[in-house]
Amino acid sequence: MSRGSAHAPGAPLVTIIGDGQLARMMQHAAVELGLSARVLASTPDASAAQVSADVVLGDYTNRDHVQEVSRDAAAVTFDHEHVPNEFLDDLINAGLNVQPQPSALIHAQDKLVMRKKLRELGAPVPPFLEITSAQDIEGFFEATKGAVCLKARRGGYDGKGVWFPETVAEAKDLVTDLLAKDVPLMAEMKVQLVRELSAMVARTPGGKIASWPVVESVQENGICVEAVAPAPETESAILHEAEELARMVARELGVTGVLAVELFETVDEVGQPTIIVNELAMRPHNTGHWTQDGCVTSQFEQHLRAVLDRPLGRTTPLAEYTVMANVLGGEHDPQMPMRQRMDVVWARFPQAKIHMYGKDWRPHRKIGHVNMTSAPGQTATELRREARLAAQFLVSAQWADGWVA
Amino acid sequence: MSRGSAHAPGAPLVTIIGDGQLARMMQHAAVELGLSARVLASTPDASAAQVSADVVLGDYTNRDHVQEVSRDAAAVTFDHEHVPNEFLDDLINAGLNVQPQPSALIHAQDKLVMRKKLRELGAPVPPFLEITSAQDIEGFFEATKGAVCLKARRGGYDGKGVWFPETVAEAKDLVTDLLAKDVPLMAEMKVQLVRELSAMVARTPGGKIASWPVVESVQENGICVEAVAPAPETESAILHEAEELARMVARELGVTGVLAVELFETVDEVGQPTIIVNELAMRPHNTGHWTQDGCVTSQFEQHLRAVLDRPLGRTTPLAEYTVMANVLGGEHDPQMPMRQRMDVVWARFPQAKIHMYGKDWRPHRKIGHVNMTSAPGQTATELRREARLAAQFLVSAQWADGWVA
Repeated sequence: MSRGSAHAPGAPLVTIIGDGQLARMMQHAAVELGLSARVLASTPDASAAQVSADVVLGDYTNRDHVQEVSRDAAAVTFDHEHVPNEFLDDLINAGLNVQPQPSALIHAQDKLVMRKKLRELGAPVPPFLEITSAQDIEGFFEATKGAVCLKARRGGYDGKGVWFPETVAEAKDLVTDLLAKDVPLMAEMKVQLVRELSAMVARTPGGKIASWPVVESVQENGICVEAVAPAPETESAILHEAEELARMVARELGVTGVLAVELFETVDEVGQPTIIVNELAMRPHNTGHWTQDGCVTSQFEQHLRAVLDRPLGRTTPLAEYTVMANVLGGEHDPQMPMRQRMDVVWARFPQAKIHMYGKDWRPHRKIGHVNMTSAPGQTATELRREARLAAQFLVSAQWADGWVA
Repeated sequence: MSRGSAHAPGAPLVTIIGDGQLARMMQHAAVELGLSARVLASTPDASAAQVSADVVLGDYTNRDHVQEVSRDAAAVTFDHEHVPNEFLDDLINAGLNVQPQPSALIHAQDKLVMRKKLRELGAPVPPFLEITSAQDIEGFFEATKGAVCLKARRGGYDGKGVWFPETVAEAKDLVTDLLAKDVPLMAEMKVQLVRELSAMVARTPGGKIASWPVVESVQENGICVEAVAPAPETESAILHEAEELARMVARELGVTGVLAVELFETVDEVGQPTIIVNELAMRPHNTGHWTQDGCVTSQFEQHLRAVLDRPLGRTTPLAEYTVMANVLGGEHDPQMPMRQRMDVVWARFPQAKIHMYGKDWRPHRKIGHVNMTSAPGQTATELRREARLAAQFLVSAQWADGWVA
């Protein structure tokens, strides 16, 4: 089904493969620029499909569907990194402008390939090893004195595909079990985490790069719950290093569009703060949602400009601090309708920018986020507290601080 | 045709009657809040229809179409004031939440009704008279010493439906001619214009009001070309009076949603600055577009929150100044494609926020706008110059200042 009979006259058409909130917010940015967007969605009520005028219903693992949604596009891009690269090669061979390209995407698809490439580039990565047998993990477990993080090489996100075995026996069992299920594996050394940072840039096929301020991100159970821009109380040398690292990775890997470099801040042998690359994402990223309300150019607009090889926008923040807090489905969905929860939050925090994705509640599912920019003189700590309170209320219909109107 | 099978589960549906850029940007704001929006559009390629997932094709002067697009809506609202009030009364009688209501809308539909009501409320209005004969205009011309502005009571906008006859004979001919065409008329005294201001507020059915900073607007040939927020070099007493006036008008006329009070700044008999109401608009307004990039809460989001009787958002500016410059079709459309014109503008001004409406070029047609927020220390004058240069380039494919990259 394609319902897109009408597009803006003369405006480039951007195909977005994916139907989640990132695609939703990308098509939103496309509309504002007067572009046309077409999304490939699995169902008509998927987050992006709900709000798009031009939707192709289909599956990104189906070659025909990927080709159908890409026809006549000035650029083909994604809200995830999981489209089979051979389909993308077909599109490129047919003359289509696919961004980012498989040669870059592979580093966001396969964690082992990424780790090897980054090590080759001299980027800071933890000790790691490809795991193809129980023996492999046994040796790695001993070498790291048990500080093991086992990862599926492909397909993991939001804490899925990551394990922290506590004993050698547990590690070996896990590996045996996963290999039997044909899950390709790698292991890396767990680091002493001070905090997580995220360095984001956008790069055009022509090689222009723009970077946003580095943010601090907070995860719970492997899922991002909060991002603060710029990262507060962080040494400027670390911020500078993180930003330069993201630029280098984008350049050397040939990334186009938005790149998020998820980083661990840790301490080195002599107690100095240092950073290590955790993951790469080659698309708009949860830790960049703050840019919608806190920055001259949002990551969604910038991604589109980048994949179309157009000039990039300014990335200056609009406030001293911006905080993004995720709205994640709770264990139970409270009786109070979401509409009413939003009203309660707005009544207390009229500055709260609530973004909802049109998704049904499910435990731990990302269904929206709240952005807040600091008022003059407001501290990052106070702003974080407010943004988290707002997001928590949207989840639980309760004020975590016991506030009564 | 309605293509809206999929809506966000549990989210209120807002019906927007109208298919222009205001409807486009309203539905945009609805999406971001996780609301569902349905628009009534005259054609599938109308500005708002292009980008909406749920479109009813029809005519706002057709009772059935207005009813069809309004079914199941949590609120019915507009991007213009011209839906016949009897249709809206029908909807209200059927239990629908129509905002703003005909009792308020009449003051944005009929300039004579508005003038009378404002005079009754003690609001500053110029001397005016209903014109039902050539004799009427003759008397008014003499009383005002020829400072006559003749207006169609209904339907005028962007300089249409407004005349400035220079002689009594011309005025009488004009009136005779227009009355013969059944155009109801009024006349008012032309004021000595210092500048135009616009005071905007949003009001909920429950009576809550939020106001934005008063802006200066610049018209050319009766069409808004620029807005500067807040109005620079304007006496604070005037700004305060304008804001209070807009609040009073919203309250006393029972306006809901966004109200724009277009004002003339003039000087009184003793040379003191003073303001006079020019027009009212009961919907998001061109002079409020700056709020998209320069304010915590945009007029489009605020309008939706207001018509749904939800808490209003903060209206604090994000920068010292924000300037909006309209992109109006020129006499000829330059050969350089718009896409390329945007690129040239972005290359010079990476801070330019370009909003395009998906509209074809036509002379004097509003096809987009540019917002720019001031960098720290940047003057309003410099910001205005940059925003105007950007908008002029989008129109003409030429730098008005002769700049060469």
